[in-house]
Amino acid sequence: MLIEELGEFGLIERIRQKSRFGTSPYDDAGVIPLENKRLLLATTDMLIEEVHFSTDLITPYEIGWRAMASNLSDIAAMGGVPTHFLVSLCLRPHTTVDFIDDLYKGMEELGTKFGLVMAGGDTNHGPCLIINITLLGEVEKKNLLTRKGAKDGNIIMVTGTLGGAECGLSILKRGGSGPQEMIKRHTMPFPRVSEARILGTTCEINGMIDISDGLVSDLYHLLEPSGLGARIYLDKLPISSALKEKAKTLGLDPIELGLYGGEEYELLFTTKYPDSIPEIGVPVTIIGEVTQDKGIFLVEKGHEKRLQKKGYTHF
Amino acid sequence: MLIEELGEFGLIERIRQKSRFGTSPYDDAGVIPLENKRLLLATTDMLIEEVHFSTDLITPYEIGWRAMASNLSDIAAMGGVPTHFLVSLCLRPHTTVDFIDDLYKGMEELGTKFGLVMAGGDTNHGPCLIINITLLGEVEKKNLLTRKGAKDGNIIMVTGTLGGAECGLSILKRGGSGPQEMIKRHTMPFPRVSEARILGTTCEINGMIDISDGLVSDLYHLLEPSGLGARIYLDKLPISSALKEKAKTLGLDPIELGLYGGEEYELLFTTKYPDSIPEIGVPVTIIGEVTQDKGIFLVEKGHEKRLQKKGYTHF
Repeated sequence: MLIEELGEFGLIERIRQKSRFGTSPYDDAGVIPLENKRLLLATTDMLIEEVHFSTDLITPYEIGWRAMASNLSDIAAMGGVPTHFLVSLCLRPHTTVDFIDDLYKGMEELGTKFGLVMAGGDTNHGPCLIINITLLGEVEKKNLLTRKGAKDGNIIMVTGTLGGAECGLSILKRGGSGPQEMIKRHTMPFPRVSEARILGTTCEINGMIDISDGLVSDLYHLLEPSGLGARIYLDKLPISSALKEKAKTLGLDPIELGLYGGEEYELLFTTKYPDSIPEIGVPVTIIGEVTQDKGIFLVEKGHEKRLQKKGYTHF
Repeated sequence: MLIEELGEFGLIERIRQKSRFGTSPYDDAGVIPLENKRLLLATTDMLIEEVHFSTDLITPYEIGWRAMASNLSDIAAMGGVPTHFLVSLCLRPHTTVDFIDDLYKGMEELGTKFGLVMAGGDTNHGPCLIINITLLGEVEKKNLLTRKGAKDGNIIMVTGTLGGAECGLSILKRGGSGPQEMIKRHTMPFPRVSEARILGTTCEINGMIDISDGLVSDLYHLLEPSGLGARIYLDKLPISSALKEKAKTLGLDPIELGLYGGEEYELLFTTKYPDSIPEIGVPVTIIGEVTQDKGIFLVEKGHEKRLQKKGYTHF
């Protein structure tokens, strides 16, 4: 049997189930007990040229930034404070030193905003550019956020706006003429580390994930562990009017971008109805509610439509 | 300028020096302070198909084993106890599930001997097989071993025998007919985790490294931070007579294999002359002494010859 037949998530599930290793609890990041009711968080992410990025479309600086952002977003989604990282590189032999300098500058520009400390690395040559970052972080036991814990009747909230990263990539693929703000959503996503930290320490969050595969796909990841489903409302989705307009000129459906666009790095979480929506410096929108019925349904003008779990998978 | 012009170690030095990140002390692994005088160790290692291994020569099981071994050896060389790992994979799309099962079985067979716990991973498709393991471990502050600390007059010791891994690889490249024991030195190296732990907790070790680049190259890595050199004795090098014989039939110089063969994963360390060579379950050999003169010299029948720092580098 080929791994394509299992699919990415099938393969991951198989690896977990067959494993004779002990396993830490992990979803966005692994959780390792420390002393004094603190936890170590660890996440690893591999970005591969022509799979996750193309050097024709984005600069080495942006590649470095994005690699760091995707890891930071995983630590954010657990409510953690990122602390240390290790980076493994596979470099084509004819890579210039300038290219490497810019790659590191992108990692640095973002990483130093969170006070990251470099704890090691590995440098190799190979057939294409690959960056693997492992990021460590910490969180107090009581502030840990995981994918588990959503409850029937919880409201579902999302930070920022949706569809931007996918739209930005589409603009780049068509030559790059478009609003810089949208392009940046793809090239230089800003992980919600501080926002998640405020939510984790001041609100009762029942489950959290970052949107990396797409809203619908990650909402399934968030609710399936609790055996629950959701109803989300089309008119509540935070899709900006600028994006709606731009999507139309690109021949894209803005709703599809909002529901299925990946690499948003926004936070998606469930909570009891809060007295006031927490102030975290970016907009937070209630998009729906958790239901006992499994499956995710989109409500449009009173009609419900079941949404499929689709999104980018590797096999 | 191309990275080939800087060389692998030049590139690493440039990255370290230009970095605006804080950096943890790190050599074989990064060192991160924990509470109660304990330290977290972290190391990462990327193995790339046709660069670090060839699927024509070794099995998926052996690839998994070796990937785990090289990381375990780094934690060993710091005197640490390995605890958790994360693994990122880049897989060719037409990889079979059996291949992945065997790859994990190899990682497991070795990793479970040390009680490792899986703390996460990332699975991707791409143009070739790449395994990146990040391994975490722990060590008490007082038992930490680093590359720093060698002192003039220290003796230099090495565990096990030398040249085996390189000889094993040569046997495989010539069709695989030869002693299984030698082939296994390449395909299933056994990291000296327990041995290093005994040395670190019971002896006064002044500096330690694992032999991954080759004896001479790693001896330079061990002594350069202290501004010191070494004299090593040809007749003391633990090169087995079986290896000497086999090397000759392969047209190889056994001394070259012993001095420059990489991926040995034996421990190389310096200490004051011990009353008795510590019992650690594998042979330990005194091969020379640390000197104030920089450079590494090989003594053969009373004559000294300066050894160049050569070995495998990526650029």
